[in-house]
Amino acid sequence: MHNYKIHPWKIIQNGWDPDKVMESESIFSIGNGSMGQRANFEEDFSGKTHQGSYVAGVYYPDKTKVGWWKNGYPKYFAKVINAPSWIGISVLIDEIPIDLNKVYKVEMLERILDMKNGLYERSISFKTKDNLKVEINSKRFISLKRKSIGAISYNIKCNRDVNITASPYIDYDISNEDSNWDEKFWETKEKINTQNRSLVKSSVKKTDFNVITFMKADLYDNNVKLENPFIAKSNSKKILLESKYSLKKGHTLKVVKFGGYVNSICNDWNKIENKTNEVLKLLENMSFESLYLEHKHEWSKIWGKSDVKIKGDIKSQQAIRFNIFQLNQTYRGDNPNLNFGPKGFTGEKYGGSTYWDTEAYCVPFCLGTKPQEVTLNLLNYRYNQLDKAIDNAKILGFKNGAALFPMVTMNGEECHNEWEITFEEIHRNNAIAYAIFNYTRYTGDSKYLNNKGLEVLVGICRFWAQRVSYSNKKKKYVILGVTGPNEYENNVNNNWYTNYSTKWCLEFAVDTISIMKKDNPESFEKLFKKLNLKESELDYWLKISKNIYLNENKDLGVFVQQDGFFDKELSEVEKLDYSDRPLNQNWSWDRILRSPYIKQADVLQGIYFFEDKFDIKSIRSNYEFYEKFTVHESSLSPCIHSIVACKLGKTESAYYLFKRASRLDLDDYNKEVNEGLHITSMAGSWLAIVEGFAGMRIKNNSLHFTPSLPKKWEELMFKITFRQNIYTIKINKGLFQCSLNINKNFYIYVNSKKLKFDRNGKASVSI
Amino acid sequence: MHNYKIHPWKIIQNGWDPDKVMESESIFSIGNGSMGQRANFEEDFSGKTHQGSYVAGVYYPDKTKVGWWKNGYPKYFAKVINAPSWIGISVLIDEIPIDLNKVYKVEMLERILDMKNGLYERSISFKTKDNLKVEINSKRFISLKRKSIGAISYNIKCNRDVNITASPYIDYDISNEDSNWDEKFWETKEKINTQNRSLVKSSVKKTDFNVITFMKADLYDNNVKLENPFIAKSNSKKILLESKYSLKKGHTLKVVKFGGYVNSICNDWNKIENKTNEVLKLLENMSFESLYLEHKHEWSKIWGKSDVKIKGDIKSQQAIRFNIFQLNQTYRGDNPNLNFGPKGFTGEKYGGSTYWDTEAYCVPFCLGTKPQEVTLNLLNYRYNQLDKAIDNAKILGFKNGAALFPMVTMNGEECHNEWEITFEEIHRNNAIAYAIFNYTRYTGDSKYLNNKGLEVLVGICRFWAQRVSYSNKKKKYVILGVTGPNEYENNVNNNWYTNYSTKWCLEFAVDTISIMKKDNPESFEKLFKKLNLKESELDYWLKISKNIYLNENKDLGVFVQQDGFFDKELSEVEKLDYSDRPLNQNWSWDRILRSPYIKQADVLQGIYFFEDKFDIKSIRSNYEFYEKFTVHESSLSPCIHSIVACKLGKTESAYYLFKRASRLDLDDYNKEVNEGLHITSMAGSWLAIVEGFAGMRIKNNSLHFTPSLPKKWEELMFKITFRQNIYTIKINKGLFQCSLNINKNFYIYVNSKKLKFDRNGKASVSI
Repeated sequence: MHNYKIHPWKIIQNGWDPDKVMESESIFSIGNGSMGQRANFEEDFSGKTHQGSYVAGVYYPDKTKVGWWKNGYPKYFAKVINAPSWIGISVLIDEIPIDLNKVYKVEMLERILDMKNGLYERSISFKTKDNLKVEINSKRFISLKRKSIGAISYNIKCNRDVNITASPYIDYDISNEDSNWDEKFWETKEKINTQNRSLVKSSVKKTDFNVITFMKADLYDNNVKLENPFIAKSNSKKILLESKYSLKKGHTLKVVKFGGYVNSICNDWNKIENKTNEVLKLLENMSFESLYLEHKHEWSKIWGKSDVKIKGDIKSQQAIRFNIFQLNQTYRGDNPNLNFGPKGFTGEKYGGSTYWDTEAYCVPFCLGTKPQEVTLNLLNYRYNQLDKAIDNAKILGFKNGAALFPMVTMNGEECHNEWEITFEEIHRNNAIAYAIFNYTRYTGDSKYLNNKGLEVLVGICRFWAQRVSYSNKKKKYVILGVTGPNEYENNVNNNWYTNYSTKWCLEFAVDTISIMKKDNPESFEKLFKKLNLKESELDYWLKISKNIYLNENKDLGVFVQQDGFFDKELSEVEKLDYSDRPLNQNWSWDRILRSPYIKQADVLQGIYFFEDKFDIKSIRSNYEFYEKFTVHESSLSPCIHSIVACKLGKTESAYYLFKRASRLDLDDYNKEVNEGLHITSMAGSWLAIVEGFAGMRIKNNSLHFTPSLPKKWEELMFKITFRQNIYTIKINKGLFQCSLNINKNFYIYVNSKKLKFDRNGKASVSI
Repeated sequence: MHNYKIHPWKIIQNGWDPDKVMESESIFSIGNGSMGQRANFEEDFSGKTHQGSYVAGVYYPDKTKVGWWKNGYPKYFAKVINAPSWIGISVLIDEIPIDLNKVYKVEMLERILDMKNGLYERSISFKTKDNLKVEINSKRFISLKRKSIGAISYNIKCNRDVNITASPYIDYDISNEDSNWDEKFWETKEKINTQNRSLVKSSVKKTDFNVITFMKADLYDNNVKLENPFIAKSNSKKILLESKYSLKKGHTLKVVKFGGYVNSICNDWNKIENKTNEVLKLLENMSFESLYLEHKHEWSKIWGKSDVKIKGDIKSQQAIRFNIFQLNQTYRGDNPNLNFGPKGFTGEKYGGSTYWDTEAYCVPFCLGTKPQEVTLNLLNYRYNQLDKAIDNAKILGFKNGAALFPMVTMNGEECHNEWEITFEEIHRNNAIAYAIFNYTRYTGDSKYLNNKGLEVLVGICRFWAQRVSYSNKKKKYVILGVTGPNEYENNVNNNWYTNYSTKWCLEFAVDTISIMKKDNPESFEKLFKKLNLKESELDYWLKISKNIYLNENKDLGVFVQQDGFFDKELSEVEKLDYSDRPLNQNWSWDRILRSPYIKQADVLQGIYFFEDKFDIKSIRSNYEFYEKFTVHESSLSPCIHSIVACKLGKTESAYYLFKRASRLDLDDYNKEVNEGLHITSMAGSWLAIVEGFAGMRIKNNSLHFTPSLPKKWEELMFKITFRQNIYTIKINKGLFQCSLNINKNFYIYVNSKKLKFDRNGKASVSI
């Protein structure tokens, strides 16, 4: 593990370890929601590296790989595909290529990710055998303002006169590391390479996504621009702009390189070419600095809406900003075809872009930090894929408009293929219903719910009505053969979380329809007609919700994670040997399955979602029981436990869990950061602060705070978007309660005393 | 489906259907335990075909293919590999190759498998566009007497003078259809091709099995041998012996071709070459006819020991002989490195050779029809792999000599990789223990048990002692997370069959050790020392066996297949729509799992194994309950139900189930015979007769018969090997009981009356 310097706004790494390059490539990734890349070196590097540059929404339907085919498996597994790389600058000094894996001695290497401004900077100096000293400084950003543009300022200086060959290039000979069958996913259609216009037109095989990768470069000697320095060249893998230059001792040769991707939703080559020409034209009038200025400005707007200030714990401060930074690099919310990929633009793993992580973790983050349109786009993403969710359910034998949203998807079609997940981890449907509820509750806007959300809910309820079965033995509706959020149990019966969230979902749908029937009979009629819905269906949903089996261990006062859980040998996590952790890297699957160990909040996920439904005693006994068996080997787990712990006043436990959640990648808890970052779980650490330490809840149209800060922390400040207003909330140490009454607008209650509240975006509460 | 003519000793097929060639290739497969082949055509064929020729024990460790790797998965999946083919004879008439896919009109095609003599014969006649009529007759067998030799007599006749090019060849450019990564498994080391000596030396990649494929051919015109007719040729795929010959109208050109494989256990090229030279030398003095004579004689010996005669139902007569024939072609019992492959030499599917099918199904067949050494070889196969079973358990986290035998293996190492099977279908261990018990019970020979069997038992018991866990809730030992014989349930708790057979296994081991301690204290001491066994271990095993959880539904009087079974919607099989069958081709896996449908006898498998432990009332209620939910979509299922039905006097149900079991491949119930035959389940149909209709049981050292023949049958006759004597048992229709008292030797009790019994291999009982 690298040790990054602790800094409130920066990730700083010093020192050179050739075996840890891949870890750093992940941590220092940059992106702008439309494209992104790992922090690969610009110059050649022959050491261990995971090259990666990605275009949002562009995927390849890789042929499914399974040992034994099972009926219903999807035909393909969507891969986030590695795109042609535009960052490369090959540099030769006196004919010898710079390659950090080969140079004589790296004297200094520093990486800095400036999260405030979205800038990645790398400085190196090294000496060759014949005492040539080379200093390189490279700055890089991907413009938040201009979707297609990234920029590099690459500076090089030597301690004697040298001949330099510097060749910015596009590498289009790209493959995915996780290709199932070692196929290449791209087909190169055309290459154009002149002094002023370097681009590669590539198409993704099968899906035919058309993308232009472009670059433009300039050369400067001590900031004096050189005229026509390049000769356009190409080979079977690259197009390059070669320049040969005699650089004086102490002078700085600077390569300014712009590049990126242009594509279009309609995929039309003409449009893409025209857009590329516009971009190239724009770049004639922009400099690295001017682009950076507008880029910085965009970041300052983001931080203005979403920063969390923590006083007293700079490590946590750094971590939460890193998480907010990465979330904003991944998804911008302006395109309903995109979503939060679990690795964002930082790696290939987990192909596909959309998991239930979006609804359970990212939606509340967006509700709290973004205009509500952003969440609306996430909801529309699912709404637009409802037909495919219905098809997906059909493949599994369901009918009559029953919808099962996919576990992993790029376009609405399922593309994961472990039967215990794909076919059985069906609770995902309820997270999608919950997000609709959550959006409505946060924003007070019920238009989505009534116009689109209900269609989604009806599809989901129809799925459940067919998926439950009636147990004559229990005289209850049961849900057999599922995998809950805790994926260390497979094919279990009556997973409490699944059953409870199904009950909730059925009731939410019926309630919503009843309200609509009363308040808006016309829409009600329209909906019933469109969906061919029957009153008898609603009656049946209610009957199920009233009679669904919810197993409880009354002696312990806990909900039973699934049937048979109490037949396990209930040995606690703390008795596990350190060498057995993480279990999934050390134990066989059967051993994990029959153990009591919980990968990820399961009963507690339900308690978190529906905490109003349970009394504090019940929440406490469930937390205290399940925390003992939870190994938190999913990145989505500790944050939920942290929130529930806050609710119970267990601040120190909550703090411990929060730190684990928020520094998962920075401290590489799961020893896998080399593969990329855990983007969606980063939203969880924001939740742990906002819903946990700040205790923020929307209840009965009020915004409530019940902060419960760890001893170390002095202050917490963040901004909440609520009904399209932004509230800056500042919480000082100490116990207090406050609530913002939304109906009576802009008064705030602190310890039951009504205080005036300043609405101009600056309202603050302090005690 | 082809309709084969019904004949007591032959499988006869008439007519030409180019789409059904693969089915016939499976049905007409021939083999001799050391090698075997599908019934591919000798001449070229461009239509749909599955070429297959196999050498016993030669496998390739194909790289494992899974979608998601799980800890503990085996690194390879052993593939039965398709070997260089020696049967090819390419024939050109007037320069045009014979290819049934292309000839003008096939007027006649007949295939006959003569099971009595082990001969496969094919006759064709066809006409070309220019009215040339060609008649071909080809006879083929693989010598039971000579492991390495197969022989073909290929006769061709035309209705006008023609120029024929006839070229017997070896095709060494071979690949497997089920290769995981489209790799070729063989490396060709050397080719030798002269008039008298044609051979190809090939090695299997990775495993380095060395095999010589040879051929030798002669040419006859109307039975007059031609001198030096061939020119040796070769290309990159074949070595061939080309002959060009002007054949007169009405004359018969005969190609006699011998071929096969030579390999050796020590894998030494010198030995293999010497053996090949011996074979080739032998063939100089043998003719097709003389080889066939000795081959026929071997078959007559087999039939003398294992035939079952059924009067009154010629379809069943044909089927049971087909099954006995195929079992004898697959495994000869003379090599403890070999076993019954589930597809024998008839296809590639199910790579690996050894399943629990061997112990549960094939062992009793061998005990009943073979010298006891054959079963001993099967037991030694597992004994020799005990170390690997211990390693296999270690990989899954077990220790102290706990053994888990693999689900699928070629050499003792696990090579199956679905977690729900590999890691969880652990009841296989108990079938291996049961086979030891069964052998001892049948033969009265306890030497194996005491010298080797106990070591296996101890390994298995140690596995169970670690695999059970104690449920505080149930106050019982439980076995969590298993897959029982019914693979339509995965990862269930307390599968009754697994728990019960474990209880039995622990008790059997402790009993055996107690007897040894009393009767043979020296061996007892030796065993304890060798295995570092402790008395406390035995005490613990007994404690587990006494307190293992065995779930019973007392209202219904049935054992509960697994925890939660009675939470299912218990809709019966007869209500299933025909279009849903077989379920595994029509339903998604989750739907199958949560349904009540049973793929294969599960509780009933336990009742079958341990029927002495249950009263008839309990057997009846379990049979009547579970039969309603059993879809018999495993080839191993109907036979067990048939046996239990016989026990209950439900002869007509038993008969129906038997027919399904015995004609599974001939009538292609599961629509997959094109992939090969279900060899091991064929032993099940023999069991259905011997243990079912003939009601044969070994109890208290007596051989009991309680026949219960279907109305249609008049007589049943088969031969039983018992304590190294062969008894011919003839049972006439009607109810009676007889038993052979083994201690008082050779008396027989029929309806309680003691009758004299002739021991000279001809003893018969009739009433």
